[in-house]
Amino acid sequence: MKIPIVENILSANERLADENRRMLAEKGVLVVNVMSSPGAGKTSLILRTIEALREQMRIGVIEGDVASRVDADTIEQLGVPVVQINTGGTCHLDANMIRGSLDQLPLDDLDLLLIENVGNLICPTDFALGEALKVMIPSVPEGDDKPYKYPAMFAAVDAIVVNKVDLLPYVEFDLEGFRKLVVGLNSNVEVFEVSCKTGEGIEAWTEWLASRPTRQHG
Amino acid sequence: MKIPIVENILSANERLADENRRMLAEKGVLVVNVMSSPGAGKTSLILRTIEALREQMRIGVIEGDVASRVDADTIEQLGVPVVQINTGGTCHLDANMIRGSLDQLPLDDLDLLLIENVGNLICPTDFALGEALKVMIPSVPEGDDKPYKYPAMFAAVDAIVVNKVDLLPYVEFDLEGFRKLVVGLNSNVEVFEVSCKTGEGIEAWTEWLASRPTRQHG
Repeated sequence: MKIPIVENILSANERLADENRRMLAEKGVLVVNVMSSPGAGKTSLILRTIEALREQMRIGVIEGDVASRVDADTIEQLGVPVVQINTGGTCHLDANMIRGSLDQLPLDDLDLLLIENVGNLICPTDFALGEALKVMIPSVPEGDDKPYKYPAMFAAVDAIVVNKVDLLPYVEFDLEGFRKLVVGLNSNVEVFEVSCKTGEGIEAWTEWLASRPTRQHG
Repeated sequence: MKIPIVENILSANERLADENRRMLAEKGVLVVNVMSSPGAGKTSLILRTIEALREQMRIGVIEGDVASRVDADTIEQLGVPVVQINTGGTCHLDANMIRGSLDQLPLDDLDLLLIENVGNLICPTDFALGEALKVMIPSVPEGDDKPYKYPAMFAAVDAIVVNKVDLLPYVEFDLEGFRKLVVGLNSNVEVFEVSCKTGEGIEAWTEWLASRPTRQHG
Protein backbone atom coordinates (compact mmCIF):
# COMPACT_ATOMS: atom_id res chain seq x y z
CA MET A 1 0.00 0.00 0.00
CA LYS A 2 2.97 2.30 0.57
CA ILE A 3 4.48 2.10 -2.89
CA PRO A 4 1.41 3.18 -4.90
CA ILE A 5 1.08 6.35 -2.77
CA VAL A 6 4.72 7.24 -3.38
CA GLU A 7 4.31 6.59 -7.10
CA ASN A 8 1.26 8.83 -7.26
CA ILE A 9 3.13 11.67 -5.60
CA LEU A 10 6.06 11.20 -7.98
CA SER A 11 3.94 11.07 -11.12
CA ALA A 12 1.94 14.13 -10.01
CA ASN A 13 5.29 15.85 -9.48
CA GLU A 14 6.53 14.79 -12.94
CA ARG A 15 3.45 16.29 -14.54
CA LEU A 16 3.90 19.61 -12.75
CA ALA A 17 7.63 19.59 -13.51
CA ASP A 18 6.86 19.10 -17.22
CA GLU A 19 4.53 22.11 -17.12
CA ASN A 20 7.20 24.23 -15.39
CA ARG A 21 9.78 23.06 -17.92
CA ARG A 22 7.61 23.88 -20.94
CA MET A 23 6.63 27.29 -19.62
CA LEU A 24 10.19 28.29 -18.70
CA ALA A 25 11.64 27.03 -22.00
CA GLU A 26 9.04 29.05 -23.92
CA LYS A 27 10.21 32.14 -22.07
CA GLY A 28 13.80 31.26 -22.96
CA VAL A 29 14.92 30.75 -19.36
CA LEU A 30 17.70 28.19 -18.77
CA VAL A 31 16.80 26.48 -15.47
CA VAL A 32 19.46 24.76 -13.35
CA ASN A 33 18.78 22.53 -10.32
CA VAL A 34 21.85 22.78 -8.02
CA MET A 35 22.25 19.94 -5.51
CA SER A 36 24.83 18.91 -2.90
CA SER A 37 25.45 17.89 0.71
CA PRO A 38 25.03 20.61 3.34
CA GLY A 39 27.94 23.03 3.15
CA ALA A 40 29.50 21.75 -0.08
CA GLY A 41 29.17 25.17 -1.72
CA LYS A 42 25.83 25.60 -3.52
CA THR A 43 25.42 29.23 -2.49
CA SER A 44 29.10 29.98 -3.12
CA LEU A 45 28.91 28.51 -6.64
CA ILE A 46 25.73 30.50 -7.35
CA LEU A 47 27.47 33.70 -6.18
CA ARG A 48 30.52 32.99 -8.40
CA THR A 49 28.23 32.17 -11.34
CA ILE A 50 26.28 35.42 -10.98
CA GLU A 51 29.54 37.37 -10.74
CA ALA A 52 30.90 35.72 -13.90
CA LEU A 53 27.77 35.79 -16.08
CA ARG A 54 25.75 38.82 -15.00
CA GLU A 55 27.05 40.99 -17.86
CA GLN A 56 25.87 38.49 -20.48
CA MET A 57 22.78 36.89 -18.86
CA ARG A 58 19.89 38.13 -16.71
CA ILE A 59 19.92 35.85 -13.68
CA GLY A 60 17.35 34.92 -11.02
CA VAL A 61 17.67 32.57 -8.04
CA ILE A 62 15.36 30.32 -6.02
CA GLU A 63 16.83 29.33 -2.64
CA GLY A 64 15.58 26.13 -0.95
CA ASP A 65 16.21 25.39 2.71
CA VAL A 66 14.46 23.56 5.53
CA ALA A 67 14.63 26.77 7.58
CA SER A 68 16.12 30.31 7.52
CA ARG A 69 16.75 32.78 4.72
CA VAL A 70 20.46 33.39 5.27
CA ASP A 71 21.34 32.31 1.71
CA ALA A 72 18.63 34.42 0.07
CA ASP A 73 19.88 37.46 2.02
CA THR A 74 23.40 36.83 0.71
CA ILE A 75 22.19 36.52 -2.90
CA GLU A 76 19.98 39.60 -2.59
CA GLN A 77 23.02 41.74 -1.81
CA LEU A 78 24.15 41.18 -5.41
CA GLY A 79 20.93 42.81 -6.60
CA VAL A 80 19.50 39.81 -8.46
CA PRO A 81 15.87 38.68 -7.99
CA VAL A 82 15.68 35.90 -5.42
CA VAL A 83 12.90 33.88 -3.77
CA GLN A 84 13.41 31.84 -0.60
CA ILE A 85 11.48 28.57 -0.16
CA ASN A 86 11.43 27.10 3.36
CA THR A 87 10.33 23.48 3.19
CA GLY A 88 9.56 23.09 6.90
CA GLY A 89 10.84 19.58 7.41
CA THR A 90 10.84 18.35 3.82
CA CYS A 91 14.21 17.13 2.54
CA HIS A 92 13.88 18.35 -1.08
CA LEU A 93 12.21 20.94 -3.29
CA ASP A 94 9.39 19.79 -5.58
CA ALA A 95 7.75 21.07 -8.78
CA ASN A 96 4.78 22.53 -6.90
CA MET A 97 7.03 24.64 -4.64
CA ILE A 98 8.83 25.94 -7.74
CA ARG A 99 5.51 26.74 -9.43
CA GLY A 100 4.53 28.84 -6.42
CA SER A 101 7.82 30.77 -6.54
CA LEU A 102 7.76 31.55 -10.26
CA ASP A 103 5.02 34.16 -9.78
CA GLN A 104 7.42 36.15 -7.64
CA LEU A 105 10.17 36.28 -10.31
CA PRO A 106 10.34 38.53 -13.41
CA LEU A 107 10.46 35.54 -15.80
CA ASP A 108 10.17 37.64 -18.98
CA ASP A 109 13.37 39.40 -17.98
CA LEU A 110 15.44 36.32 -17.11
CA ASP A 111 17.85 34.19 -19.15
CA LEU A 112 19.09 31.94 -16.35
CA LEU A 113 17.31 30.65 -13.23
CA LEU A 114 19.52 28.98 -10.63
CA ILE A 115 17.62 26.82 -8.12
CA GLU A 116 19.47 25.87 -4.93
CA ASN A 117 17.93 22.64 -3.66
CA VAL A 118 17.91 21.50 -0.01
CA GLY A 119 21.32 20.21 1.16
CA ASN A 120 20.88 16.46 0.73
CA LEU A 121 22.25 13.75 -1.59
CA ILE A 122 19.20 11.48 -1.45
CA CYS A 123 15.71 13.04 -1.55
CA PRO A 124 16.23 15.64 -4.33
CA THR A 125 17.11 12.89 -6.81
CA ASP A 126 13.49 11.76 -7.15
CA PHE A 127 11.82 15.14 -7.60
CA ALA A 128 12.10 16.92 -10.97
CA LEU A 129 11.50 20.67 -10.73
CA GLY A 130 11.23 21.59 -14.40
CA GLU A 131 14.95 22.15 -14.83
CA ALA A 132 16.94 21.91 -18.07
CA LEU A 133 20.10 20.91 -16.18
CA LYS A 134 20.87 19.05 -12.97
CA VAL A 135 24.17 19.99 -11.35
CA MET A 136 25.79 18.42 -8.32
CA ILE A 137 28.58 19.82 -6.16
CA PRO A 138 30.73 17.32 -4.28
CA SER A 139 33.35 19.01 -2.10
CA VAL A 140 36.86 17.74 -1.51
CA PRO A 141 36.69 17.47 2.32
CA GLU A 142 33.65 15.14 2.04
CA GLY A 143 35.95 12.46 0.66
CA ASP A 144 36.16 10.64 -2.66
CA ASP A 145 33.87 7.71 -1.74
CA LYS A 146 30.54 9.51 -2.17
CA PRO A 147 29.71 7.96 -5.60
CA TYR A 148 29.62 4.53 -3.92
CA LYS A 149 27.13 5.74 -1.33
CA TYR A 150 24.86 7.98 -3.41
CA PRO A 151 24.97 6.39 -6.88
CA ALA A 152 21.49 7.63 -7.91
CA MET A 153 22.50 11.26 -7.46
CA PHE A 154 25.75 10.87 -9.41
CA ALA A 155 23.95 9.00 -12.20
CA ALA A 156 21.18 11.62 -12.56
CA VAL A 157 23.16 14.81 -13.14
CA ASP A 158 24.40 16.64 -16.24
CA ALA A 159 27.39 18.25 -14.55
CA ILE A 160 29.49 17.70 -11.45
CA VAL A 161 31.36 20.68 -10.04
CA VAL A 162 33.96 19.46 -7.54
CA ASN A 163 34.40 22.34 -5.10
CA LYS A 164 37.07 23.30 -2.52
CA VAL A 165 40.04 22.06 -4.57
CA ASP A 166 42.08 24.61 -2.57
CA LEU A 167 41.85 22.09 0.31
CA LEU A 168 43.40 19.22 -1.73
CA PRO A 169 46.81 19.61 0.00
CA TYR A 170 45.21 19.08 3.44
CA VAL A 171 42.80 16.16 2.92
CA GLU A 172 42.90 12.77 1.25
CA PHE A 173 41.02 12.96 -2.03
CA ASP A 174 42.03 11.04 -5.18
CA LEU A 175 40.74 13.29 -7.99
CA GLU A 176 41.69 10.83 -10.73
CA GLY A 177 39.99 7.89 -9.01
CA PHE A 178 36.95 10.03 -8.26
CA ARG A 179 36.60 11.00 -11.93
CA LYS A 180 36.79 7.36 -13.00
CA LEU A 181 34.14 6.35 -10.46
CA VAL A 182 31.83 9.15 -11.59
CA VAL A 183 32.22 8.43 -15.30
CA GLY A 184 31.53 4.75 -14.57
CA LEU A 185 28.14 5.75 -13.15
CA ASN A 186 27.40 8.44 -15.72
CA SER A 187 29.35 8.43 -18.96
CA ASN A 188 27.81 11.67 -20.29
CA VAL A 189 28.52 13.85 -17.27
CA GLU A 190 30.72 16.95 -17.45
CA VAL A 191 33.16 17.22 -14.53
CA PHE A 192 34.61 20.57 -13.42
CA GLU A 193 37.08 21.24 -10.61
CA VAL A 194 36.76 24.58 -8.86
CA SER A 195 37.47 26.57 -5.75
CA CYS A 196 34.69 29.02 -5.02
CA LYS A 197 37.06 30.52 -2.45
CA THR A 198 39.92 31.36 -4.84
CA GLY A 199 37.97 31.45 -8.11
CA GLU A 200 40.09 28.66 -9.65
CA GLY A 201 38.24 26.75 -12.38
CA ILE A 202 35.11 28.93 -12.30
CA GLU A 203 35.58 30.18 -15.88
CA ALA A 204 35.43 26.70 -17.46
CA TRP A 205 32.19 26.00 -15.55
CA THR A 206 30.48 29.29 -16.44
CA GLU A 207 31.54 29.10 -20.11
CA TRP A 208 30.00 25.65 -20.37
CA LEU A 209 26.85 26.77 -18.54
CA ALA A 210 26.35 29.89 -20.68
CA SER A 211 26.53 27.78 -23.85
CA ARG A 212 23.75 25.35 -22.82
CA PRO A 213 20.48 25.42 -24.76
CA THR A 214 17.33 26.30 -22.79
CA ARG A 215 15.75 22.96 -23.70
CA GLN A 216 18.14 20.28 -22.58
CA HIS A 217 15.73 17.53 -21.58
CA GLY A 218 12.84 17.54 -24.07
CA MET B 1 -4.97 13.15 4.35
CA LYS B 2 -1.19 13.21 4.13
CA ILE B 3 -0.44 14.14 7.73
CA PRO B 4 -2.28 11.25 9.46
CA ILE B 5 -0.34 8.69 7.38
CA VAL B 6 2.97 10.29 8.35
CA GLU B 7 1.92 10.36 12.01
CA ASN B 8 0.98 6.68 11.93
CA ILE B 9 4.38 5.77 10.53
CA LEU B 10 6.12 7.88 13.16
CA SER B 11 4.12 6.51 16.08
CA ALA B 12 4.63 2.92 14.88
CA ASN B 13 8.34 3.73 14.73
CA GLU B 14 8.29 5.21 18.26
CA ARG B 15 6.71 2.02 19.59
CA LEU B 16 9.35 -0.18 17.96
CA ALA B 17 12.12 2.18 19.09
CA ASP B 18 10.87 1.92 22.70
CA GLU B 19 10.99 -1.86 22.46
CA ASN B 20 14.55 -1.74 21.07
CA ARG B 21 15.56 0.72 23.82
CA ARG B 22 14.12 -1.39 26.63
CA MET B 23 15.66 -4.61 25.34
CA LEU B 24 19.10 -3.08 24.81
CA ALA B 25 19.09 -1.30 28.19
CA GLU B 26 18.22 -4.60 29.91
CA LYS B 27 21.25 -6.18 28.29
CA GLY B 28 23.35 -3.23 29.49
CA VAL B 29 24.23 -2.00 26.00
CA LEU B 30 24.79 1.77 25.58
CA VAL B 31 23.34 2.63 22.16
CA VAL B 32 24.47 5.72 20.25
CA ASN B 33 22.84 7.12 17.09
CA VAL B 34 25.56 8.95 15.11
CA MET B 35 24.30 11.49 12.55
CA SER B 36 25.88 14.03 10.17
CA SER B 37 26.05 15.33 6.62
CA PRO B 38 27.70 13.05 4.06
CA GLY B 39 31.46 13.04 4.61
CA ALA B 40 31.55 14.90 7.94
CA GLY B 41 33.31 12.00 9.64
CA LYS B 42 30.84 9.49 11.11
CA THR B 43 32.94 6.46 10.19
CA SER B 44 36.17 8.20 11.20
CA LEU B 45 34.76 9.07 14.63
CA ILE B 46 33.52 5.50 15.09
CA LEU B 47 36.99 4.17 14.20
CA ARG B 48 38.67 6.58 16.67
CA THR B 49 36.11 5.67 19.36
CA ILE B 50 36.72 1.92 18.93
CA GLU B 51 40.47 2.50 19.08
CA ALA B 52 40.17 4.53 22.31
CA LEU B 53 37.60 2.41 24.16
CA ARG B 54 38.08 -1.17 22.99
CA GLU B 55 40.16 -2.14 26.05
CA GLN B 56 37.41 -1.06 28.44
CA MET B 57 34.20 -1.71 26.47
CA ARG B 58 32.99 -4.43 24.10
CA ILE B 59 31.85 -2.55 21.01
CA GLY B 60 29.55 -3.38 18.08
CA VAL B 61 28.59 -1.26 15.06
CA ILE B 62 25.58 -0.91 12.75
CA GLU B 63 26.39 0.90 9.50
CA GLY B 64 23.58 2.63 7.59
CA ASP B 65 23.94 3.75 3.98
CA VAL B 66 21.71 4.14 0.94
CA ALA B 67 24.08 1.85 -0.96
CA SER B 68 27.46 0.07 -0.64
CA ARG B 69 29.25 -1.55 2.29
CA VAL B 70 32.53 0.37 2.12
CA ASP B 71 32.19 1.64 5.71
CA ALA B 72 31.30 -1.77 7.16
CA ASP B 73 34.37 -3.23 5.44
CA THR B 74 36.55 -0.56 7.07
CA ILE B 75 35.09 -1.23 10.53
CA GLU B 76 35.37 -5.00 10.13
CA GLN B 77 39.14 -4.69 9.71
CA LEU B 78 39.29 -3.68 13.38
CA GLY B 79 37.75 -7.04 14.31
CA VAL B 80 34.56 -5.69 15.90
CA PRO B 81 31.12 -7.11 15.06
CA VAL B 82 29.45 -4.99 12.38
CA VAL B 83 26.19 -5.14 10.41
CA GLN B 84 25.58 -3.13 7.23
CA ILE B 85 22.07 -1.83 6.49
CA ASN B 86 21.44 -0.61 2.94
CA THR B 87 18.28 1.49 2.88
CA GLY B 88 17.79 1.43 -0.91
CA GLY B 89 16.57 4.97 -1.42
CA THR B 90 15.46 5.78 2.12
CA CYS B 91 17.15 8.82 3.67
CA HIS B 92 17.30 7.55 7.28
CA LEU B 93 17.46 4.41 9.41
CA ASP B 94 14.36 3.43 11.37
CA ALA B 95 13.60 1.29 14.43
CA ASN B 96 12.45 -1.66 12.34
CA MET B 97 15.73 -1.78 10.38
CA ILE B 98 17.63 -1.75 13.68
CA ARG B 99 15.44 -4.52 15.06
CA GLY B 100 16.32 -6.67 12.06
CA SER B 101 20.05 -6.06 12.55
CA LEU B 102 20.14 -6.84 16.27
CA ASP B 103 19.76 -10.58 15.62
CA GLN B 104 23.07 -10.50 13.79
CA LEU B 105 24.99 -8.97 16.71
CA PRO B 106 26.24 -10.71 19.90
CA LEU B 107 24.19 -8.40 22.18
CA ASP B 108 25.00 -10.32 25.39
CA ASP B 109 28.67 -9.61 24.79
CA LEU B 110 28.38 -5.87 24.00
CA ASP B 111 28.67 -2.77 26.19
CA LEU B 112 28.47 -0.16 23.44
CA LEU B 113 26.58 -0.19 20.12
CA LEU B 114 27.47 2.61 17.69
CA ILE B 115 24.88 3.15 14.94
CA GLU B 116 26.01 5.16 11.92
CA ASN B 117 22.90 6.73 10.40
CA VAL B 118 22.51 7.72 6.72
CA GLY B 119 24.41 10.94 5.84
CA ASN B 120 21.66 13.53 6.10
CA LEU B 121 20.75 16.40 8.45
CA ILE B 122 16.99 16.22 7.94
CA CYS B 123 15.29 12.80 7.77
CA PRO B 124 17.08 11.01 10.66
CA THR B 125 15.76 13.62 13.13
CA ASP B 126 12.24 12.19 13.06
CA PHE B 127 13.08 8.49 13.48
CA ALA B 128 14.09 7.17 16.90
CA LEU B 129 16.04 3.91 16.73
CA GLY B 130 16.06 2.89 20.39
CA GLU B 131 19.23 4.82 21.20
CA ALA B 132 20.29 6.15 24.61
CA LEU B 133 22.25 9.00 22.99
CA LYS B 134 21.96 11.03 19.81
CA VAL B 135 25.25 12.46 18.55
CA MET B 136 25.78 14.82 15.64
CA ILE B 137 29.02 15.59 13.82
CA PRO B 138 29.25 18.95 12.07
CA SER B 139 32.55 19.37 10.22
CA VAL B 140 34.48 22.62 9.93
CA PRO B 141 34.55 22.85 6.09
CA GLU B 142 30.72 22.71 5.98
CA GLY B 143 30.65 26.20 7.50
CA ASP B 144 29.33 27.60 10.76
CA ASP B 145 25.80 28.45 9.51
CA LYS B 146 24.34 24.94 9.69
CA PRO B 147 22.39 25.48 12.95
CA TYR B 148 20.31 28.13 11.15
CA LYS B 149 19.42 25.71 8.39
CA TYR B 150 18.90 22.47 10.31
CA PRO B 151 17.63 23.63 13.72
CA ALA B 152 15.65 20.43 14.45
CA MET B 153 18.79 18.28 14.22
CA PHE B 154 20.84 20.57 16.48
CA ALA B 155 17.99 20.76 19.02
CA ALA B 156 17.51 16.97 19.17
CA VAL B 157 21.00 15.74 20.07
CA ASP B 158 22.82 15.02 23.34
CA ALA B 159 26.30 15.74 21.99
CA ILE B 160 27.85 17.61 19.10
CA VAL B 161 31.32 16.55 17.97
CA VAL B 162 32.77 19.24 15.72
CA ASN B 163 35.19 17.39 13.42
CA LYS B 164 38.08 18.43 11.14
CA VAL B 165 39.36 21.21 13.42
CA ASP B 166 42.73 20.61 11.73
CA LEU B 167 41.23 22.51 8.75
CA LEU B 168 40.40 25.64 10.82
CA PRO B 169 43.42 27.56 9.45
CA TYR B 170 42.20 27.06 5.86
CA VAL B 171 38.45 27.77 6.04
CA GLU B 172 36.20 30.38 7.60
CA PHE B 173 34.57 28.94 10.70
CA ASP B 174 33.83 30.94 13.85
CA LEU B 175 33.99 28.30 16.61
CA GLU B 176 32.90 30.70 19.35
CA GLY B 177 29.90 31.95 17.37
CA PHE B 178 29.00 28.38 16.39
CA ARG B 179 28.98 27.28 20.05
CA LYS B 180 26.71 30.18 20.99
CA LEU B 181 24.29 29.36 18.19
CA VAL B 182 24.17 25.69 19.17
CA VAL B 183 23.66 26.37 22.88
CA GLY B 184 20.87 28.79 21.96
CA LEU B 185 19.05 25.91 20.24
CA ASN B 186 19.93 23.26 22.81
CA SER B 187 21.11 24.41 26.24
CA ASN B 188 21.87 20.87 27.51
CA VAL B 189 24.09 19.75 24.66
CA GLU B 190 27.74 18.75 25.16
CA VAL B 191 30.06 20.19 22.50
CA PHE B 192 33.39 18.58 21.65
CA GLU B 193 36.00 19.74 19.12
CA VAL B 194 38.04 17.02 17.46
CA SER B 195 40.16 16.06 14.51
CA CYS B 196 39.66 12.43 13.59
CA LYS B 197 42.67 12.86 11.32
CA THR B 198 45.18 13.95 14.00
CA GLY B 199 43.41 12.52 17.08
CA GLU B 200 43.13 15.95 18.73
CA GLY B 201 40.22 16.17 21.19
CA ILE B 202 39.22 12.50 20.90
CA GLU B 203 40.02 11.71 24.54
CA ALA B 204 37.53 14.25 25.97
CA TRP B 205 34.81 12.78 23.75
CA THR B 206 35.49 9.13 24.56
CA GLU B 207 35.83 9.81 28.31
CA TRP B 208 32.43 11.49 28.30
CA LEU B 209 30.92 8.68 26.22
CA ALA B 210 32.30 5.89 28.41
CA SER B 211 30.80 7.51 31.51
CA ARG B 212 27.23 7.66 30.13
CA PRO B 213 24.58 5.45 31.75
CA THR B 214 22.91 2.84 29.51
CA ARG B 215 19.48 4.34 30.15
CA GLN B 216 19.74 7.99 29.17
CA HIS B 217 16.25 8.62 27.88
CA GLY B 218 13.80 6.70 30.11
